Amino acid sequence: MRTIEWDGEAVAIVDQTVLPQRVERLRLSSVDELCDALGRLAVRGAPALGAAGALGVALSARNAEQWGATGEAFHAAVSADARRIVEVRPTAVNLAWGVARVMQHVDGGAQSMLDAALALLEDEAECTRLISLRGADLLDELHHGRHRVLTHCNAGALACVEWGTALGVVRAAHERMRLEHVMCTETRPLLQGARLTAWELAQMGAPHTLIVDSAAALVMARGMVDVVVVGADRIAANGDVVNKIGTYAHALAAQRAGIPFVVAAPESTVDMATASGADVPIEERAHDEVVRWGGRSIAPEETPVFNPAFDVTPADLVTAIVTERRVIRPARGDRP
Amino acid sequence: MRTIEWDGEAVAIVDQTVLPQRVERLRLSSVDELCDALGRLAVRGAPALGAAGALGVALSARNAEQWGATGEAFHAAVSADARRIVEVRPTAVNLAWGVARVMQHVDGGAQSMLDAALALLEDEAECTRLISLRGADLLDELHHGRHRVLTHCNAGALACVEWGTALGVVRAAHERMRLEHVMCTETRPLLQGARLTAWELAQMGAPHTLIVDSAAALVMARGMVDVVVVGADRIAANGDVVNKIGTYAHALAAQRAGIPFVVAAPESTVDMATASGADVPIEERAHDEVVRWGGRSIAPEETPVFNPAFDVTPADLVTAIVTERRVIRPARGDRP
Repeated sequence: MRTIEWDGEAVAIVDQTVLPQRVERLRLSSVDELCDALGRLAVRGAPALGAAGALGVALSARNAEQWGATGEAFHAAVSADARRIVEVRPTAVNLAWGVARVMQHVDGGAQSMLDAALALLEDEAECTRLISLRGADLLDELHHGRHRVLTHCNAGALACVEWGTALGVVRAAHERMRLEHVMCTETRPLLQGARLTAWELAQMGAPHTLIVDSAAALVMARGMVDVVVVGADRIAANGDVVNKIGTYAHALAAQRAGIPFVVAAPESTVDMATASGADVPIEERAHDEVVRWGGRSIAPEETPVFNPAFDVTPADLVTAIVTERRVIRPARGDRP
Repeated sequence: MRTIEWDGEAVAIVDQTVLPQRVERLRLSSVDELCDALGRLAVRGAPALGAAGALGVALSARNAEQWGATGEAFHAAVSADARRIVEVRPTAVNLAWGVARVMQHVDGGAQSMLDAALALLEDEAECTRLISLRGADLLDELHHGRHRVLTHCNAGALACVEWGTALGVVRAAHERMRLEHVMCTETRPLLQGARLTAWELAQMGAPHTLIVDSAAALVMARGMVDVVVVGADRIAANGDVVNKIGTYAHALAAQRAGIPFVVAAPESTVDMATASGADVPIEERAHDEVVRWGGRSIAPEETPVFNPAFDVTPADLVTAIVTERRVIRPARGDRP
């Protein structure tokens, strides 16, 4: 099952807002519906957003043609929808990238745009498949026997079109009968690990256990994990890894415990324009993500909050970065 | 304000179950009411439980005398209440200890028992006051200028009779105008940091910021903290520190950032019968603490959970342990 796909007439997605309580597929048959789903984070994750942007403008083109729009009118309608889609999440680079890729084909009409969007989805799926297989090879090289993996946040199929990155590696190891168990951290504040990763692991039939983020270091110290595998939001030119808040502490604990720390991410994540993690601004998210829970305060309402979205794992703590075409070893001095 | 005290006729406590939404003092004028408060965790924390046990049997004796019980009848009534109190939380060592301390005076009658209970409260308050002052001296020695402190969980007045341990050190530094700011971690799964520590810091007027546990390592790496101060549940003979889950990861991050890691705890926490942290069994708590929140599931219901209550910080990561009578420096080889 893909997280996002074209069902012949509309964009079909797994609604991530109702997971893990319910698994619902949403049919988005208009750009209005698609924008609403993007805004509610019913679809999220960089690769999945790229696919949503691509399919979104293809949907716009199909609907415009069905209403009889041609020539200038067709071009104007689709261009307006393209801008609308991008503006729902203006800082999501992949969303704009997916839209732009398909808009290159606007002069070819709706079918040409749909073909381009479907090709992009295939490319994305193939990319994460290659990361997953190469990553599973790497786990076998780093650790003998069946692997007990710790992962953080959700770098799974739900964030991508298919497979996922860190969780794709887990899936590939599982399919080869090389996976023993997965420790999955809940990932405060938004609980992507508890809500999404635990669900995905159950779907793939992989034995797993949920822990609070703070328990990861103990779990490693007590010999309950063989390798840590996480995704990445950005990789700097010196091999520093920017990823979900909490990743850095797991890398410190892995080093202390003598456990390999592996990052699985596409080449598009490597940003040679960023010299090191120190150059990355820390994105801060909303106060309420920390202080409120299910509509109720868990701390005095006026408590000041610092809510950084990600942290930086220094290159010397990163055993390996696996992409769709290579393995980089920052801890031993390799650079992307 | 004390967390627990004698108001002349009854035991008065701050009800911790309604914090931080409301601040309510409960008057417990019968042993039934006291047992109910203990069971609901309206009063919690090892030193506070010792005080509750002591005042509980003093209350029992006072009520028995008022009903006219004397001799054997008085003794039997108070002894039965003493057993009832201990049985509410049978694994809480301090509760039984507080009860036993005051029961030594049962032959002296109600006033003698009350005097013993009040003396115990004074001893507890004096102990944490000495830890607090000595700890504030230590901060001045370890760091010049006003201190930016990171603390974890709640080792404050709410867990004690007065002052607290780690938060007592913070308070003493604040009263000396030597405190710049406190970073307080929310402390999953039970959120003692968000619910209790943030509230105590607001009460004392200390500038503070709440973060998720996973953000602590970033905060240290980015130079936002000068010193980490935490409490302890147990200290082993080799200087290993057993404390709330998450403490160990903070110690690793502090070491990497070159920040002192200080433990504030009474001498009674030092357990020379435990050779090292490796000998400490890991207490596991309920599945629901991780998987449910405000009555709602945050992960698939059937997800297996590992929920350890504490972890072990190895002695080499502990810059100093401050008690009511000394400072021990495990990282440089000192042993308790």
